[in-house]
Amino acid sequence: MKKEGCGIAGIALTQGNAASPIFYALYALQHRGQESAGIAVCSGGAKGGKENEISGWKKDISLKKGMGFVYEVFSTQQLESLEGNIGIGHVRYSTMGASRVENAEPLLANYRRGKIAIAHNGNLVNALELRSELEREGRIFHSDTDTEVMAQLLAKELMRHDPIGAIKELMKCVVGSYSLVILMDNTLIGVRDPLGIKPLCLGELKDGGEGNGEGYIIASESPAIDTLGWNLIRDVRPGEVLVIKPSQGSRRSRVAENDLESHQLYRGVNSAHCVFEYVYFARSDSVLDGRLVYDVRMKMGKRLVEEQGVEADMVSPVPDSGTTFAIGYAKRSGIDYMEGFIKNRYVGRTFIMPEKASRDTAVRLKLNVVQANVEGKRIVLVDDSIVRGTTSRIIVDYLKKKGAKEVHLRIGSPPIIAPCYLGINTPTRDELLASKRTTADICEFLNADSIGYLSMEGLIDSVGIDANNLCLGCLTGKYPVEIPGEVCIARQLKLTQF
Amino acid sequence: MKKEGCGIAGIALTQGNAASPIFYALYALQHRGQESAGIAVCSGGAKGGKENEISGWKKDISLKKGMGFVYEVFSTQQLESLEGNIGIGHVRYSTMGASRVENAEPLLANYRRGKIAIAHNGNLVNALELRSELEREGRIFHSDTDTEVMAQLLAKELMRHDPIGAIKELMKCVVGSYSLVILMDNTLIGVRDPLGIKPLCLGELKDGGEGNGEGYIIASESPAIDTLGWNLIRDVRPGEVLVIKPSQGSRRSRVAENDLESHQLYRGVNSAHCVFEYVYFARSDSVLDGRLVYDVRMKMGKRLVEEQGVEADMVSPVPDSGTTFAIGYAKRSGIDYMEGFIKNRYVGRTFIMPEKASRDTAVRLKLNVVQANVEGKRIVLVDDSIVRGTTSRIIVDYLKKKGAKEVHLRIGSPPIIAPCYLGINTPTRDELLASKRTTADICEFLNADSIGYLSMEGLIDSVGIDANNLCLGCLTGKYPVEIPGEVCIARQLKLTQF
Amino acid sequence: MKKEGCGIAGIALTQGNAASPIFYALYALQHRGQESAGIAVCSGGAKGGKENEISGWKKDISLKKGMGFVYEVFSTQQLESLEGNIGIGHVRYSTMGASRVENAEPLLANYRRGKIAIAHNGNLVNALELRSELEREGRIFHSDTDTEVMAQLLAKELMRHDPIGAIKELMKCVVGSYSLVILMDNTLIGVRDPLGIKPLCLGELKDGGEGNGEGYIIASESPAIDTLGWNLIRDVRPGEVLVIKPSQGSRRSRVAENDLESHQLYRGVNSAHCVFEYVYFARSDSVLDGRLVYDVRMKMGKRLVEEQGVEADMVSPVPDSGTTFAIGYAKRSGIDYMEGFIKNRYVGRTFIMPEKASRDTAVRLKLNVVQANVEGKRIVLVDDSIVRGTTSRIIVDYLKKKGAKEVHLRIGSPPIIAPCYLGINTPTRDELLASKRTTADICEFLNADSIGYLSMEGLIDSVGIDANNLCLGCLTGKYPVEIPGEVCIARQLKLTQF
Amino acid sequence: MKKEGCGIAGIALTQGNAASPIFYALYALQHRGQESAGIAVCSGGAKGGKENEISGWKKDISLKKGMGFVYEVFSTQQLESLEGNIGIGHVRYSTMGASRVENAEPLLANYRRGKIAIAHNGNLVNALELRSELEREGRIFHSDTDTEVMAQLLAKELMRHDPIGAIKELMKCVVGSYSLVILMDNTLIGVRDPLGIKPLCLGELKDGGEGNGEGYIIASESPAIDTLGWNLIRDVRPGEVLVIKPSQGSRRSRVAENDLESHQLYRGVNSAHCVFEYVYFARSDSVLDGRLVYDVRMKMGKRLVEEQGVEADMVSPVPDSGTTFAIGYAKRSGIDYMEGFIKNRYVGRTFIMPEKASRDTAVRLKLNVVQANVEGKRIVLVDDSIVRGTTSRIIVDYLKKKGAKEVHLRIGSPPIIAPCYLGINTPTRDELLASKRTTADICEFLNADSIGYLSMEGLIDSVGIDANNLCLGCLTGKYPVEIPGEVCIARQLKLTQF
Repeated sequence: MKKEGCGIAGIALTQGNAASPIFYALYALQHRGQESAGIAVCSGGAKGGKENEISGWKKDISLKKGMGFVYEVFSTQQLESLEGNIGIGHVRYSTMGASRVENAEPLLANYRRGKIAIAHNGNLVNALELRSELEREGRIFHSDTDTEVMAQLLAKELMRHDPIGAIKELMKCVVGSYSLVILMDNTLIGVRDPLGIKPLCLGELKDGGEGNGEGYIIASESPAIDTLGWNLIRDVRPGEVLVIKPSQGSRRSRVAENDLESHQLYRGVNSAHCVFEYVYFARSDSVLDGRLVYDVRMKMGKRLVEEQGVEADMVSPVPDSGTTFAIGYAKRSGIDYMEGFIKNRYVGRTFIMPEKASRDTAVRLKLNVVQANVEGKRIVLVDDSIVRGTTSRIIVDYLKKKGAKEVHLRIGSPPIIAPCYLGINTPTRDELLASKRTTADICEFLNADSIGYLSMEGLIDSVGIDANNLCLGCLTGKYPVEIPGEVCIARQLKLTQF
Repeated sequence: MKKEGCGIAGIALTQGNAASPIFYALYALQHRGQESAGIAVCSGGAKGGKENEISGWKKDISLKKGMGFVYEVFSTQQLESLEGNIGIGHVRYSTMGASRVENAEPLLANYRRGKIAIAHNGNLVNALELRSELEREGRIFHSDTDTEVMAQLLAKELMRHDPIGAIKELMKCVVGSYSLVILMDNTLIGVRDPLGIKPLCLGELKDGGEGNGEGYIIASESPAIDTLGWNLIRDVRPGEVLVIKPSQGSRRSRVAENDLESHQLYRGVNSAHCVFEYVYFARSDSVLDGRLVYDVRMKMGKRLVEEQGVEADMVSPVPDSGTTFAIGYAKRSGIDYMEGFIKNRYVGRTFIMPEKASRDTAVRLKLNVVQANVEGKRIVLVDDSIVRGTTSRIIVDYLKKKGAKEVHLRIGSPPIIAPCYLGINTPTRDELLASKRTTADICEFLNADSIGYLSMEGLIDSVGIDANNLCLGCLTGKYPVEIPGEVCIARQLKLTQF
Repeated sequence: MKKEGCGIAGIALTQGNAASPIFYALYALQHRGQESAGIAVCSGGAKGGKENEISGWKKDISLKKGMGFVYEVFSTQQLESLEGNIGIGHVRYSTMGASRVENAEPLLANYRRGKIAIAHNGNLVNALELRSELEREGRIFHSDTDTEVMAQLLAKELMRHDPIGAIKELMKCVVGSYSLVILMDNTLIGVRDPLGIKPLCLGELKDGGEGNGEGYIIASESPAIDTLGWNLIRDVRPGEVLVIKPSQGSRRSRVAENDLESHQLYRGVNSAHCVFEYVYFARSDSVLDGRLVYDVRMKMGKRLVEEQGVEADMVSPVPDSGTTFAIGYAKRSGIDYMEGFIKNRYVGRTFIMPEKASRDTAVRLKLNVVQANVEGKRIVLVDDSIVRGTTSRIIVDYLKKKGAKEVHLRIGSPPIIAPCYLGINTPTRDELLASKRTTADICEFLNADSIGYLSMEGLIDSVGIDANNLCLGCLTGKYPVEIPGEVCIARQLKLTQF
Repeated sequence: MKKEGCGIAGIALTQGNAASPIFYALYALQHRGQESAGIAVCSGGAKGGKENEISGWKKDISLKKGMGFVYEVFSTQQLESLEGNIGIGHVRYSTMGASRVENAEPLLANYRRGKIAIAHNGNLVNALELRSELEREGRIFHSDTDTEVMAQLLAKELMRHDPIGAIKELMKCVVGSYSLVILMDNTLIGVRDPLGIKPLCLGELKDGGEGNGEGYIIASESPAIDTLGWNLIRDVRPGEVLVIKPSQGSRRSRVAENDLESHQLYRGVNSAHCVFEYVYFARSDSVLDGRLVYDVRMKMGKRLVEEQGVEADMVSPVPDSGTTFAIGYAKRSGIDYMEGFIKNRYVGRTFIMPEKASRDTAVRLKLNVVQANVEGKRIVLVDDSIVRGTTSRIIVDYLKKKGAKEVHLRIGSPPIIAPCYLGINTPTRDELLASKRTTADICEFLNADSIGYLSMEGLIDSVGIDANNLCLGCLTGKYPVEIPGEVCIARQLKLTQF
């Protein structure tokens, strides 16, 4: 179905090992990627800012990564063997075919002054071009990732600049979405692209229980912070670079500025937050840009009633993606909320369906119709979005076969008409159900009694962010960065002086 | 938390391999056991009932079993290597410690006339006694399971009786709950104990797509049948033995009676269906004894409003076990249904928490409070039942820490005051929160603002089965079979003549 | 090629864990079986012979077994988790196809008074018949092994007899070869069949280093004892049962008889030692029946010169099986010993040749001709025996292709003309090269310039045991026990009174 | 004990897949490295030399590598999935600790024009210096190997030069030993360093059976060629680069020069072949520089008699390293060749001895004294060399404990007094037994009755190569390349014009 990008987390503790909390954070971000997981840690920090004089620092970075869920990649024993108070972690999306451990992150590389580890969520639109340039300098690449492109650029710039200067140069070159956590020089660095396309947030541990002292976390979504029992401070700002050096001296004399530096390298007039984080990607308990996603989705569901209300006997979600929308719809419409489907909670990552099994069987393994709930009923079936429509069609048929009288599809977002170049792995235009079909055609194709999409206004109002600050590329075909062959509504960005 | 027993499924096809549909059925029964899974198949059936004359039958049974989820134990390749048109499968519960592949089922044994495979859901209360008797005859045992006890008894009786006669003798000896599927003599046999304690149902495939001809299925719960796209016929009756020999001749001339024989070995005046299948064990989309579990749980939720109504701002379930109850509660009370928690869908089977991690962390990994939903709210928190209460307490505290103004616990069943001897793995009386505490004590212990359990009458009315036909042992301390040291309200059973 | 039976070892220590020395012993017996390995241990022994009064004894037996080499099955961690001062171990032969972990040994079973573990080297010729009898009593079997037949018989007899009495009854029933180590009642028991067909020897540790106190070992071959640095005492006698209960009291007051009891249950006028242990199965550093195998093989090689001398430029073994024979041949003949082949030491257990690879490639992977050594030479090529002859033919061709002028095969044993029923897995008569061919035919088939087998007299003289005390079945077609359809030269056996 | 470097093999076929023959070749080179194995293949070749015009070529390189023996890393299935008619393979030495799959080879990298795969046997002495230079250019490294250093240099030079030109530049920079096989531009390239320190040879398949057409092989040692049944052509010459493009057109019109080009980039007045390849590293059936290693070792053994003859009753090797030397010693001296030890053929790669096990146990697991062979005997014990001497001491003691009257050590090479910088993983000077001890001290330390090393002259005469063309660094402390802090006897090298 829909594929997510990746999830990242970086943690800096004043004492204790970072690997366990990173593991928990990745656990909470597992929905952003199930293909591979990795954690890199090192010992970091400084007494009075003079880290170079202290010979005792272990500068080396330890890395462990592998294919599979976070809990499959890491045993307790392995977590304990990853020693160091700062670290970063990554979960990667699941794709067909070319999934290889070489592409798993964090990427670890040796450069002139030591080791550097990088974890990335996003997609560069000029990665191939940058890679060609680097290869023309005689460089070699070990993976197919744009993360390695950034690592090479960074290593190159670090010859001439300090870390912040090098990151600034990196940000001048790369175009696209990138939320990064970086481990270098015993320091944790967080970077969010100037348009803030992919989410990234900052949290802290004040009175660290469990022997962890105090700490900071930079993560893709706030539930990673909640899971640790830490506190969300704020989003990382578009164009902002955060540098965290955990002080290991007396906590009393700590001067906060030494620990957490913010460098606002870019200041944009506008940003371009991915609207699909609100619609589908983010957990509903995430707080993005100060907004609870659950609340946004409830609003979308309610708005659907206003825009596309229909008489019916029950409101059912397509679990789990449509659940919050459906609760909102039910509340506003006064129609009973009732589960038409029960989802199998044990559908596994690794199972590959026998070839001869039909698509129907694949859907039935995941979703079972509660026949008695749907028999003879007029059903409002609520989902977040429709991509190819293949599954939606089977689901509608399934309901009807089990006796549903009417099935009215209500979709919590406008039609997807264009590819996404800033997340990953979306279908081509031809594969998108809505790219070349009228709503009536779609309704017929899906065998539904009616279909109602949320309007663009409804979407934007529900999110509560001005359209000029959202990326609506997949819904409008107009993108916030230049992409060859596509329409661009560029945002204004200013590089800061410092 | 709570542990289930096991799930079983047996399938007989007139053509094609049974392993794939058994696999799908186990997939749908995965919630009944995640520790191990197994499938045994053989070629079975008869042309004109004279199977012994046909030399071409492959009589041998192939078995594959292993630790883990169904999809972990079986690759597509392995499924395809299991050839045979009849077979049985089993998923086993997850326990700490002594989980061993030797205890995984189906159990496969050689006896005088060939091989026999058995899969079992239930618990014998006289297994140790029976085993001692068998050992006194000089027999040896390879596992610790009561399934092996039944296999030995069966093999012994098969010396003197035909299969039905032998099963009748077996049923005379054993006391407890047992739903069985058995593979022997190229025949699939289903057995449900005379009290019908554990569920078992029968389904069929009429116009078999996917090259599978026609077929029968005997499974723990009906979603196993739904998942295949087959049709539920009815429950297997308490004390009934079903014998299925798939005819492989011309389907036109098929006489149904040859294929599916029913032997009502026992006729009880009363049965003793496990009430907790309705409360917790079964999937909500299961149909047990003609009742949709979803519907029963909705009724329980509504009844809770009548019995234990309370003023509040929102109704939230403890996901996922409390969800249907909460939907019912919200509907009847008119209070908004709103998710106070988001459950992490990726919590894995194999992960063992680092020892130093607190119980709080363990809960936070599974459940995250949606702070904005609960802040300042008076919450009705609905769950299906409380066993030890340790998790409930953390959950209530968690809500309050996130700003909930009041937390009113509403439980969809009466207090659990006694152990279960007929399912598995329940705590001792001392560990049960309600065994020695008043409701007020419990409320205080759980730090809730109020607690309301469903009454016994409310439970029985909602299920819609007479108390004399239910096993209410864990709620009353009175059991339908004799258990040393416990009160017994025996049911009347009559062995049928035949 | 040729397949061995199994290797067994049992160890009883006065202190410390038996698992590690058993592991080392199995390491030394690895040549007897590479398919699977297993170790079972328990805590055993007695203070003053009153073990039943001591409640502290752990009576339970721990078992670990798996497929593969000993060092693949056991990690150091796993060895350490096997606690107990007495135990037994087993390595199993490698076969094609039906190798299953269910058949791996030791076999562990529960019987009336506890657990019993058995490991077996040998083959019963009446196993199927005994199994049928047991199945007629309604017993079930979990494996296909004759070891389980013996376990069932033993458990049955233990109802009526003490352990020695039960073993006596067992030995009355079973016909064939069996060297056994048994763990039961916290006691280690060793059994060798009345004809002493398969080897079994006894060793001891007097001044136990490494914290192991003192100890006894019963093992298939003496290098298992050497590897531990312990001392060989003697062979277990045909028909003898050894019972070892490690005393854990003060070692000073120890009365040796309490620790090691010998029960000579059978006294035969003759025995029937497998002559192929001397020819091929046993390690050349084994001492069997007081004879060093290396010495026997040297004698065979020398005798070959006397019987089948030929003019030549060099003597080369087929490594490794022909090496000692070739050294003997070279010494007696005065012809230079020179390696015509170098064997690849890394040929692995698990590698399965791609189907299209020729047999030639398979041989070349194992053996490489040293071209410069063989070019233009007349070679005496010495091997221990020829079974099917397929490999021998390729080897001769290979030498000739690399320029050997003449290849004279000299074989350290007479032609194999009949199957072995008392070891395992030998070919049928039809597959045996020599069963229906004259020596001249064989020579032509193998493309050799001459072939010379050792005579029967030469064999017997070299071994130094009277023909009446050897099993020569595969060389004569006459067997020491009754086998349907075969000629039997029965040995006289007398049951001892006691 | 002693550790080897690595083994490499490259194969180009006119048709069929190269992976299987590479696999077999690595099998034959397994003694050169047991830690990891890898194979990289691609489709290569040209019709009429215009490969760029043919769009159909698959240019991509497929790689599979892993930890363990060749047969553990590759299943038949995996071999078959590696499609392509040219390829390279690598086996890596086994070390303690830092063995990681990231360091396994072949190394695969993307560079400007596609992919490049490299496998390396040898050691650069200026790798760190070169790496620092490259890092100063802002490059990043993913591994710790000098192979990656060479890959980066090569990619860099390929910006300005054609492949041969780039390799020439590479060879100007790097100092040390390197035998390389490279896959790039659908071409197989073999490189041997200007001093020819590590071996590399060339073979061919003329009338390819098994559907493989014709082919060339470049491999570390000739048994890799023998194992395939192919023919050894000659050694790759020091300073030579071989370029093989398999023509895939009609084989009749093939012009051989198109397929195999030789570029003699360097012409040295002298070479510096590693003398330890003759003493220990190479298989005894290898032909190095036109000399059969078996023959060289026989000569060494005979020369030992002349230089260090001693009266004795038997000559025994330390198996397997001393075997050929001992056969030579026995032949020249007329003293009986007799095995004092039997080596366990099943000693595994992965087994880690329990910590408390003594070194004695470790030796006994590998070697068992044949007591009857050694008792009361005066033994000449022959080995190839002594490094630390720890094992030798245990072996001598072991013989004496088993009754040997006298043990006279005879060593087939002079004392090792200095580290090796051009192979790998040798001990420091302090760990070398002979670095600071007289022969008398060594004899006493090893508890031998006498010790006799081969003289330098004896060694050189036996090898038959002038000392000026050998690397004798570990025996003299004088090295053929400049190594900081060590004496250098540099060789003259001339870069060829072309």
